[in-house]
Amino acid sequence: MKTKLERIGSPEDLKNMGHDELTHLCREIRSMLVSTSHENGGHLASNLGVVELTVALHRVFNSPSDRIIWDVGHQCYTHKILTGRKEEFGTIRRHRGLSGFPDPLESEHDPVFSGHAGTSVSTAAGIAAAIKLKESADRVIAVIGDGSLGAGIALEAINHAGHAGTDLTIILNDNGMSISPTVGSICRALQKIRCNRKYISAKNRIHDRASALPFGRSFLEMGAIMKRMFRNTIMPGTLWEELGLLYMGPVDGHNIAELEEILARRRDSHSGPAIIHVVTKKGKGYRPAEANAVHFHGIAPSCKKDAPEDECTFSGIFAESLMDLMERNEKIVAVTAAMTDGTGLAPVARKFPDRVFDVGICEQHAVTMAAGIATQGFIPVVAIYSTFLQRAYDQIIHDVCIQGLPVIFAIDRAGVVGDDGKTHQGIFDISFLRTVPGLTLCAPMDGAELRDMLGTAVAARRPFAIRYPRGNTAARSKKNGCMLRPGKGEILREGSDCAILAVGSMVGPSLAAAEQLANAGIDCTVANMRYIKPLDGDIILEAAASTGTIVTVEENVVSGGFGSAVLEFLNREGMRGIAVKTVALQDEFIEHGPQALMREKSGLDAAGIARQIWSLYSDIHREKTKQRAGAWR
Amino acid sequence: MKTKLERIGSPEDLKNMGHDELTHLCREIRSMLVSTSHENGGHLASNLGVVELTVALHRVFNSPSDRIIWDVGHQCYTHKILTGRKEEFGTIRRHRGLSGFPDPLESEHDPVFSGHAGTSVSTAAGIAAAIKLKESADRVIAVIGDGSLGAGIALEAINHAGHAGTDLTIILNDNGMSISPTVGSICRALQKIRCNRKYISAKNRIHDRASALPFGRSFLEMGAIMKRMFRNTIMPGTLWEELGLLYMGPVDGHNIAELEEILARRRDSHSGPAIIHVVTKKGKGYRPAEANAVHFHGIAPSCKKDAPEDECTFSGIFAESLMDLMERNEKIVAVTAAMTDGTGLAPVARKFPDRVFDVGICEQHAVTMAAGIATQGFIPVVAIYSTFLQRAYDQIIHDVCIQGLPVIFAIDRAGVVGDDGKTHQGIFDISFLRTVPGLTLCAPMDGAELRDMLGTAVAARRPFAIRYPRGNTAARSKKNGCMLRPGKGEILREGSDCAILAVGSMVGPSLAAAEQLANAGIDCTVANMRYIKPLDGDIILEAAASTGTIVTVEENVVSGGFGSAVLEFLNREGMRGIAVKTVALQDEFIEHGPQALMREKSGLDAAGIARQIWSLYSDIHREKTKQRAGAWR
Repeated sequence: MKTKLERIGSPEDLKNMGHDELTHLCREIRSMLVSTSHENGGHLASNLGVVELTVALHRVFNSPSDRIIWDVGHQCYTHKILTGRKEEFGTIRRHRGLSGFPDPLESEHDPVFSGHAGTSVSTAAGIAAAIKLKESADRVIAVIGDGSLGAGIALEAINHAGHAGTDLTIILNDNGMSISPTVGSICRALQKIRCNRKYISAKNRIHDRASALPFGRSFLEMGAIMKRMFRNTIMPGTLWEELGLLYMGPVDGHNIAELEEILARRRDSHSGPAIIHVVTKKGKGYRPAEANAVHFHGIAPSCKKDAPEDECTFSGIFAESLMDLMERNEKIVAVTAAMTDGTGLAPVARKFPDRVFDVGICEQHAVTMAAGIATQGFIPVVAIYSTFLQRAYDQIIHDVCIQGLPVIFAIDRAGVVGDDGKTHQGIFDISFLRTVPGLTLCAPMDGAELRDMLGTAVAARRPFAIRYPRGNTAARSKKNGCMLRPGKGEILREGSDCAILAVGSMVGPSLAAAEQLANAGIDCTVANMRYIKPLDGDIILEAAASTGTIVTVEENVVSGGFGSAVLEFLNREGMRGIAVKTVALQDEFIEHGPQALMREKSGLDAAGIARQIWSLYSDIHREKTKQRAGAWR
Repeated sequence: MKTKLERIGSPEDLKNMGHDELTHLCREIRSMLVSTSHENGGHLASNLGVVELTVALHRVFNSPSDRIIWDVGHQCYTHKILTGRKEEFGTIRRHRGLSGFPDPLESEHDPVFSGHAGTSVSTAAGIAAAIKLKESADRVIAVIGDGSLGAGIALEAINHAGHAGTDLTIILNDNGMSISPTVGSICRALQKIRCNRKYISAKNRIHDRASALPFGRSFLEMGAIMKRMFRNTIMPGTLWEELGLLYMGPVDGHNIAELEEILARRRDSHSGPAIIHVVTKKGKGYRPAEANAVHFHGIAPSCKKDAPEDECTFSGIFAESLMDLMERNEKIVAVTAAMTDGTGLAPVARKFPDRVFDVGICEQHAVTMAAGIATQGFIPVVAIYSTFLQRAYDQIIHDVCIQGLPVIFAIDRAGVVGDDGKTHQGIFDISFLRTVPGLTLCAPMDGAELRDMLGTAVAARRPFAIRYPRGNTAARSKKNGCMLRPGKGEILREGSDCAILAVGSMVGPSLAAAEQLANAGIDCTVANMRYIKPLDGDIILEAAASTGTIVTVEENVVSGGFGSAVLEFLNREGMRGIAVKTVALQDEFIEHGPQALMREKSGLDAAGIARQIWSLYSDIHREKTKQRAGAWR
């Protein structure tokens, strides 16, 4: 017998199903989500939470002419399964497989790429403006979680749409969680509503009875004052209606019939901005995920479970080091933006609940709040992923660095991140931070050095950024951190043919590349540069003088990166005629795939670095031989 | 007889004055504001609007132990006058004089620098967190305009403070204007309240009578339901109270007694986040400014009034060109973020009201909304100042360039802006935009070329950024724009000694420098590069081959800028041994002062460029002479 899922070729096929069949279908989808996520890794809990919502959306609206925008996008798995991608679903998040996020290159049902939180309402507002200009009757729906709603861009868009009367529907997917439990007063207001289960039935009762009376509907529309009084004593949408949005809900996000009814009412009602409050449960239908949604937010493939015990993550070492520093110095505080777990801060927050501030998905506010704290003699450590720090570029310039405040940026997930793909790569931070006057920027080669850098940053009392990659580091130093000399790197290996100047995650592979090259007769110096800004000019000048050949290696885009800084330095110093090779990521976005594979494909593993040096060296060698031949002739 | 103002050495001196004296004082301050602003230029209208508010704040609170944060900061003139800076007030916005914005280096009464909108609540939240950790009783007050309130960072901070119960006071300075008339539903809600004058007196009456009754106060605290009903039918603060803030007001912002009463009530009441709604009139007390607050938002010094008639601004030509293009192509729309006047879009918006979107002070939303519009076959032109575009760096990457959408960025005020100073310099855009894969970046040498570039950008159908400076351009082309070859520059002058590769605003001064150098016997090629990304490799290679000496000239920081791009290119091409001089702004923030003077001080005028080339040339010449001498020996 065919499964229900086998009958779904496109969203149209959903429309002929009865509710019993839909219940079956949802069960089949859940089972596919659980097994595939365990196989490939992925955002399991959030996807389990929106199965019924996705089904109902596709039954009531007509994708792709009606556009459904999934905010953040990692909860789009059911949407992908229902929109013609169920056969390839087993490849999700695998290299060259389906993306774990919406992707217009995969399907016309995905209007835009997404990956960062809070953009859906802006995107929807733009699409709605275009639809209006085209005088089309298409609809646009943004599905946004309660956590993402607190992002500045989402609030900006709601404020604007409410004013402009933009014709869009916001589905508020309220599960009371962002990555970490949600913070923010908007969310607290939602919680008040959500917890008041009595309210839902009371409201339905009033609505049903009123509708049954001859003048029921007009009783409900009895005039502004009564309505506002009624609304505010019983109805929860005041906040939204003050913002100019029609508020509908809350509705049980796991009851397809109720969802369809409210969505259809919205579809058939007047235009303008509306928000439908849907209450869902993250991890719904899979007990382990229901019990621990934070853990099941993003899971790793099951095969990766057994990491060697002597390895630990950069995030873990950051947190451990910070905890030690905070114990010794009560002026140190930490700020993060809904990344308490991901950045490793969770145990720090448990130990120092008053000194760790999680402001929600608000990178701009996080950075400026840290600046405010720093003006009062404290030393805030702002822990944010590289890709999300892009949101706070202006605040880093305007609120931290113009004032020269002692804010420390702990930039996690810098470099290639792996399975999340192009929206999440942390590959621009060296370039955009290096431009900011007064900001020190460094990168540790391993966990021990991260510990030292953090201690050094605390002592530096100036704007200070430390970037480190996603993943494990072998070196775990239990000893107290030692102070690093500001702006100074170290020579790890001496050689006479060529000098490899490496930063952060690329020091290890560069050392390995030097070993490979030594076997081929090329003798390399390897420097752990530590600092990108200020540069260690002594190392560079000596490398240039002694070998005449410099290779810079970094896990960042080539434009404006560390290699570019070295070129600027050499040029400023008038060191002409030095052969320089800048090994870095090319000027393009990087697809999803395992971190090690993507580094390899970008030439940023030991073999790739050795290959690039080999080819440079052959060129130079050829040149030199030619010159020598010329001299002999 | 002493004036009232002469009696004010510090805010303490305000506290002994009677209300009649204060009225006199305010008049004296206004007269000082008007005369100084006409002399030096400045933000006149907004400063006239907050005279009484500033006086009242300093009478009720104790600055500097209580911290007063002025959002944006350009309304801090009265604050500067009252906090010991009245003697230097005549120097405001003059080079080496007082800054037009708060500046901690000037006075302990300015807790932070500011200049960009919406940061005050975040800063205040940070300071409040620090005050709490110190267990101090100091207060922190953020004064924010209704326009700035819609900025994502302000909304993020309010959402967080409301949830966290942060002890801060937000003074909402509601004048119904940001730079352009405010947009956003929050502002509309304010307007509703503001217009309802009856409400104010009704509320006061109820409050007064209730307080007079024996059980009056408890009548007012009669229980949650009644209170909410009462509040929502009469009271306007629902939005704020839903967000977890205590709402007080509205109050007449030009009545010192009323202001003091409400501020004192707040000071003496419970802690936690509160918002006081103060209604002010921009330009108050100076009729021309009251009548046209947009015009008097920022005024130029009176001596600058008579610009030659044949000159016009880059902004003006941008708008004129865009209007022409929009007439011919109905798919072109424009988006801005509260810069309709500044970017020149006002007449375009009047002509095409449906196709120009001003979203308020929301750069993030503006860019992502434009991306949404672009997905539907339209070509949005996003007009934003360089300094404010820093707020949308992530959106440029994530929402526009990953998708390769045809969004055009018209980046006004790129380069040194002049009197506004370090918070407003547009000196990073080349560096941060050059890193983004798939983005074309160019800069016109004059108004005619801006017109051509805009036409070229429309035809390009890809992410496209055009940067141009604040101020006038002599060349005004009335002819239809011609298409520029993508990625191609032009040689304006041929010479054999050295090649000057200039971009945008620096092409003119470079030509002039070449003339000066010609008189000294140095013969320069001058190229108008037009494109920063992609670079015109042919011009660079030929310049390198024919002269061996390249000078890059740009109005941007040296780190990661155009010069750096040329170095990267030469290195990639294996062109070693070329002498390169990168003329650019140094790695530091630039103070306020007249645009021409600040360019001159940075070496970016004709004389400065010539001087730097001369010194490079002397070095090279010396080297060559030495080499030749060596060869002869």
